[in-house]
Amino acid sequence: MSLRPLKVGLIGGGGGAFIVQPHQRAIHFEGTRRVVCGALHPDPEVALKEAENWPYPIKGYRSYDEMIEEESKKPVGERIDYALIVTPNHVHFDPAMKCIQAGIPVFCEKPLTVTLEEADKLVQAVKEKNIPFGVAHTYLGHWTSWFSRYIVRSGLIGEVRWVDAYYLQGWLAVRTEDMGVMQAEWRVDPKRAGASCCGGDIGTHALMQLRYVTGLEVTEVCAFLETFVEGRQLDDHFTTYVKLSNGGRGVVRASQISIGHKNDLGIEVVGTKGTLVWRQEEPEKVVIHLMDQPDRVYWRAAVKPNDGFLGDVPDWLLNEPTIPSGHPEAFHDAFARLHRSFEADVRAYLEGKPFKCDGSKYANVEDGRIGIAFIEAAVESSKKGNVWVPMK
Amino acid sequence: MSLRPLKVGLIGGGGGAFIVQPHQRAIHFEGTRRVVCGALHPDPEVALKEAENWPYPIKGYRSYDEMIEEESKKPVGERIDYALIVTPNHVHFDPAMKCIQAGIPVFCEKPLTVTLEEADKLVQAVKEKNIPFGVAHTYLGHWTSWFSRYIVRSGLIGEVRWVDAYYLQGWLAVRTEDMGVMQAEWRVDPKRAGASCCGGDIGTHALMQLRYVTGLEVTEVCAFLETFVEGRQLDDHFTTYVKLSNGGRGVVRASQISIGHKNDLGIEVVGTKGTLVWRQEEPEKVVIHLMDQPDRVYWRAAVKPNDGFLGDVPDWLLNEPTIPSGHPEAFHDAFARLHRSFEADVRAYLEGKPFKCDGSKYANVEDGRIGIAFIEAAVESSKKGNVWVPMK
Amino acid sequence: MSLRPLKVGLIGGGGGAFIVQPHQRAIHFEGTRRVVCGALHPDPEVALKEAENWPYPIKGYRSYDEMIEEESKKPVGERIDYALIVTPNHVHFDPAMKCIQAGIPVFCEKPLTVTLEEADKLVQAVKEKNIPFGVAHTYLGHWTSWFSRYIVRSGLIGEVRWVDAYYLQGWLAVRTEDMGVMQAEWRVDPKRAGASCCGGDIGTHALMQLRYVTGLEVTEVCAFLETFVEGRQLDDHFTTYVKLSNGGRGVVRASQISIGHKNDLGIEVVGTKGTLVWRQEEPEKVVIHLMDQPDRVYWRAAVKPNDGFLGDVPDWLLNEPTIPSGHPEAFHDAFARLHRSFEADVRAYLEGKPFKCDGSKYANVEDGRIGIAFIEAAVESSKKGNVWVPMK
Amino acid sequence: MSLRPLKVGLIGGGGGAFIVQPHQRAIHFEGTRRVVCGALHPDPEVALKEAENWPYPIKGYRSYDEMIEEESKKPVGERIDYALIVTPNHVHFDPAMKCIQAGIPVFCEKPLTVTLEEADKLVQAVKEKNIPFGVAHTYLGHWTSWFSRYIVRSGLIGEVRWVDAYYLQGWLAVRTEDMGVMQAEWRVDPKRAGASCCGGDIGTHALMQLRYVTGLEVTEVCAFLETFVEGRQLDDHFTTYVKLSNGGRGVVRASQISIGHKNDLGIEVVGTKGTLVWRQEEPEKVVIHLMDQPDRVYWRAAVKPNDGFLGDVPDWLLNEPTIPSGHPEAFHDAFARLHRSFEADVRAYLEGKPFKCDGSKYANVEDGRIGIAFIEAAVESSKKGNVWVPMK
Repeated sequence: MSLRPLKVGLIGGGGGAFIVQPHQRAIHFEGTRRVVCGALHPDPEVALKEAENWPYPIKGYRSYDEMIEEESKKPVGERIDYALIVTPNHVHFDPAMKCIQAGIPVFCEKPLTVTLEEADKLVQAVKEKNIPFGVAHTYLGHWTSWFSRYIVRSGLIGEVRWVDAYYLQGWLAVRTEDMGVMQAEWRVDPKRAGASCCGGDIGTHALMQLRYVTGLEVTEVCAFLETFVEGRQLDDHFTTYVKLSNGGRGVVRASQISIGHKNDLGIEVVGTKGTLVWRQEEPEKVVIHLMDQPDRVYWRAAVKPNDGFLGDVPDWLLNEPTIPSGHPEAFHDAFARLHRSFEADVRAYLEGKPFKCDGSKYANVEDGRIGIAFIEAAVESSKKGNVWVPMK
Repeated sequence: MSLRPLKVGLIGGGGGAFIVQPHQRAIHFEGTRRVVCGALHPDPEVALKEAENWPYPIKGYRSYDEMIEEESKKPVGERIDYALIVTPNHVHFDPAMKCIQAGIPVFCEKPLTVTLEEADKLVQAVKEKNIPFGVAHTYLGHWTSWFSRYIVRSGLIGEVRWVDAYYLQGWLAVRTEDMGVMQAEWRVDPKRAGASCCGGDIGTHALMQLRYVTGLEVTEVCAFLETFVEGRQLDDHFTTYVKLSNGGRGVVRASQISIGHKNDLGIEVVGTKGTLVWRQEEPEKVVIHLMDQPDRVYWRAAVKPNDGFLGDVPDWLLNEPTIPSGHPEAFHDAFARLHRSFEADVRAYLEGKPFKCDGSKYANVEDGRIGIAFIEAAVESSKKGNVWVPMK
Repeated sequence: MSLRPLKVGLIGGGGGAFIVQPHQRAIHFEGTRRVVCGALHPDPEVALKEAENWPYPIKGYRSYDEMIEEESKKPVGERIDYALIVTPNHVHFDPAMKCIQAGIPVFCEKPLTVTLEEADKLVQAVKEKNIPFGVAHTYLGHWTSWFSRYIVRSGLIGEVRWVDAYYLQGWLAVRTEDMGVMQAEWRVDPKRAGASCCGGDIGTHALMQLRYVTGLEVTEVCAFLETFVEGRQLDDHFTTYVKLSNGGRGVVRASQISIGHKNDLGIEVVGTKGTLVWRQEEPEKVVIHLMDQPDRVYWRAAVKPNDGFLGDVPDWLLNEPTIPSGHPEAFHDAFARLHRSFEADVRAYLEGKPFKCDGSKYANVEDGRIGIAFIEAAVESSKKGNVWVPMK
Repeated sequence: MSLRPLKVGLIGGGGGAFIVQPHQRAIHFEGTRRVVCGALHPDPEVALKEAENWPYPIKGYRSYDEMIEEESKKPVGERIDYALIVTPNHVHFDPAMKCIQAGIPVFCEKPLTVTLEEADKLVQAVKEKNIPFGVAHTYLGHWTSWFSRYIVRSGLIGEVRWVDAYYLQGWLAVRTEDMGVMQAEWRVDPKRAGASCCGGDIGTHALMQLRYVTGLEVTEVCAFLETFVEGRQLDDHFTTYVKLSNGGRGVVRASQISIGHKNDLGIEVVGTKGTLVWRQEEPEKVVIHLMDQPDRVYWRAAVKPNDGFLGDVPDWLLNEPTIPSGHPEAFHDAFARLHRSFEADVRAYLEGKPFKCDGSKYANVEDGRIGIAFIEAAVESSKKGNVWVPMK
């Protein structure tokens, strides 16, 4: 049976923001979700103009306040089914909170907020309203992230001893912020980005990958934040040594000055029996090393159930809608998988049914909060001379 | 200024066909194109049922005849803007011809037809009607295919001496056709697939990549078609040695029995000054080797104009809408680029303006015809004992 | 118990010949073999001078005739234990034959000879004299070549359907022979190189790898020899389509004009159950693909017996003297393994015991002969218009 | 002119020690050096027996004291030209000091000693005696290490900001020391290995690579030593965050429990203009990333002088004796390059000429001392709760 496409309202996303475009493609991916309106800019006039220039017709709002107010008045089916927040970091909290209060599910760019206090409030509000809330940790959307999570939790590589989670880039190795690159400008500005540039922007992705794949929490952080490019106020290189909730150890590290690395997010999980390796720039494969065995390279859509080695990989994982192996999936596919998973929760919510939103298929508001807590702990550790700081 | 989304009508695509899904995602990718109706199955009842079960509401037609007839009656803006043909090979010609006659642009799965005669007719009809016609050679849609074409034509690697174009798979190494795999069943059936299985299905992609990237034509073919799996009537392994229009030589080869290869399409172009290497399973990069120089690895979206080496890469190529380097593009992105490029030609056509459809961004009807001619020559060569056969 | 080092006499190798150096290192590798004398150059004066300038003291002979004569007179233990022939191709036959007649084991560079007639004579002489004779197909000396041979013969990948054996280089893409590069000069000269440049020089290595790993023979050849660089008389690009003795098919191909390829020898063996992949530029690993299984990457010295998959890999293979995995072996290690294996046969021969020399650890005189026969067939096929020619 | 081969005396190396074999091959590599005698075991009877069973005849000594005494009495040309020390770590100091005192050049396995006090004494003694002294940091012997050093010092990648030097292994992930593996037994024993297992054994290699390539010194260390495998007294996982002498930062890290890593030593040097990447398991290549440029992959023996990019690579570097590109060098080649370089210094020393021994081609006694100081600082830092400790 066909279902009506879900309606999505944008908050932010005008003025050439990069991140709105992958979301736009991810939303439309299967034809079952549509962007129908947007409050695209803080300036009301610009907001309307941007909406008029949207590639296809959408309704423009002068502000997200107006959008939330107007849309809330409409009956379900006519109003937006969820809001997508793609504003700068310091403008996540307010619209997110207002959407929640209005009963509108939210899919929010990361980081969730710029302070832990705000994050706590959102967690509380989402809990009270019992409403779907997603955080855009894109890379969880790779099938291979799902598979990695399954593998580690299945016990195949034994108890986790060590995790190396990293996200390395090189684009801020020079003063990119002086070259008219909007993406760089706000990231290095403490007012708009928060207390950390490199850690907040991409270190949190590495943390999220660690937590998602292993199911472990970071309990204490010893951090080394560096600012290599002259004139910057925030870190452009970020290294933390962490204690894990099972007694294991790891590093969560990030860089924006490592020339040659593009979007080099990856994770290596070392267990008592084996090691799992994954990299987002080659997102179709997962490598598993077991003691005294050949390397095993698993490819998305080429994993067979019960191969006598993995155990019985569950059907929901094998059958996750996808294209055959060798027709690679990549960034947009991961993005789309987030929205597809969120769609399922939103549809259940709209029908008054239970929904998951449990962090198993996309990051939720608690995951967002932990990212903020991590950055706060890391900044404190680094400022105090690289001492151990517990996670709040 | 916003533009109304284009309307797309499907011909074929019901019953679990694989290829319709990537098209569906590619069509909806940016929100500027929508599937609105379909004649999804040869059985009228099934066709209507499949339409009802489409993920989102579309209009179902009992047959493509009905669809073409009904849609043709509507004014532009209400009727479909183009038809997508994803039927089995032997059902490409008839609906394609009828669409052309009705003035409906066509985007057709490959191979264009099952005989050269039919292909010639389509070429003629398209010419007469002066209408956009695309053939789904997906892999041309990679930005790196566009870049490879630019590089080779720029003269950077000198005159082309040798080309190795290949497409290797392993999924038909056993009698997959007996395991209820629809994709395998029709491909090994001469009635539905035509005179060649492996060559027709994937060898033509290798040929297309060769022609697209180098701008050269194959003039003569010496072919070796093998059937390794018992009980098959058609080739499951395909090798041709070819003469090129500039006097160069090459191989166009394909396999469906090479276990371990998934979708291993690639091309290596050897020139008098250097070599260009590209593989679709790692579609973000192009490797260029020049004599006595280090290997150069170019990444999509990380190529800079006028780097003192490439020459002045044109803006249209650098600015092709895309995501930053390191956020990989893959199969769906290539598919979407085809439809995005076709959309531009269709919009021009609808406005009565000149349109390109010249094979520079996606394959056109002539490209489709040449694919058919190549397979006919290869089959003839192989049957006659691996003799040289000129291309028609 | 310690053994006296074997004494090796060089025939050829003066004047900056490249290939003598790896042999020199391979001979001395473990300290159990020593170069003690040499007839290093066709000009007697130069020969003596070259010997004086050898890095360490060796006895110089004015000619190989003198060397063979003088050495033959000495008792075993004082005379050379084997001769190494590293002269240009057309000077292999004569000294080889004379050594055999004198009862001196021979390790000869490839190709064995420049005509099949000569090769036949050597085969005959070796048989009559029952003497160790090795041909320097270096790449058989990789542990991973031994392992590949074991794997294919074990039946793990099923019956062989298809083999792609290749050796691609780019150094002759320009007229290197005009730049004072001795290596290039004689290779492109029919008088010194024989009837084929590219095929004879490196195509034979690809053939040898195919035969060694699969145990199959080539029965018929359809060949395409090309000369891309102007002014050359011999092929610089070489492609053959071959029939195998089990009914399988394959290509044996080589190139000297493929810029970017250095010493790109490799083999892919496609069987009914799986595929084995090996490349000499990454000689530490063997990749095995089985239907519906993850890729398996095996590393030298990290293969464990009876891993529940390979079967019981024999001890002699696992225990072949070597360094631990991750301390890579490479070209010199392969070369040394040839001489080490040959040493064992020579020691047995000297003691009057049976020796193997059966092609299982290094190429023997029959292997050398088959290489010559292959080139003759390929040249004939190509000249006659790419027709099928049976192997003699 | 031929030169007499140098005579080498072994101290240690009996009883199946792994490391003596690569040294043996490296010493004999070109035929210009020979092992002639050895004190192979601490037990005099065993020592003599081991010598008798050496693959080829050498003179056995009952102890290194005896060997040093006897050999010292002989005239140059008859006595050993240098000693190779391959005893367990705690037996390096004594024979090294005695050789120095006797005027015998020493090539010593790393770590130099087990305490900094001993290391200081050796440095002092070498200085006073002005005698060649090498430390076996094997990986400096790769041509690509030499090239990396040249590149970084040439300024091509700008000022160094960040270095990641690592050495990851997995073989001690289980209690290998209980399985009769001699290599494991002594390494985990504080009496024989010193204060650190993982750091001392392989972390020092990572440090050496950092210092050699960048020319920078570590000034302060914040260390995290972990013991993951139960029952061990020493670290099997080792991470340090370090300050560099130019104000840069880095990590020097090592692991013995990272299953799947074999001998994964590598370095990434991030400068203000670019990044250099090198890995010992693929020792033929160096990758250089410059801002806004394609990746450049340089291959040993394929680097051309003055390519318009690197500047004028000096002849001594380009002409370092070697095999052509594509015939890979590996572990034994690196080892041999150390001994070849040391040979040159020993020959100069014997002739009373100045010699280098300046750390530019192999590690010297000062390098060895710094390795010991680094481990001491790291152990202190970790014990005190991961505080900053200056290098002594």
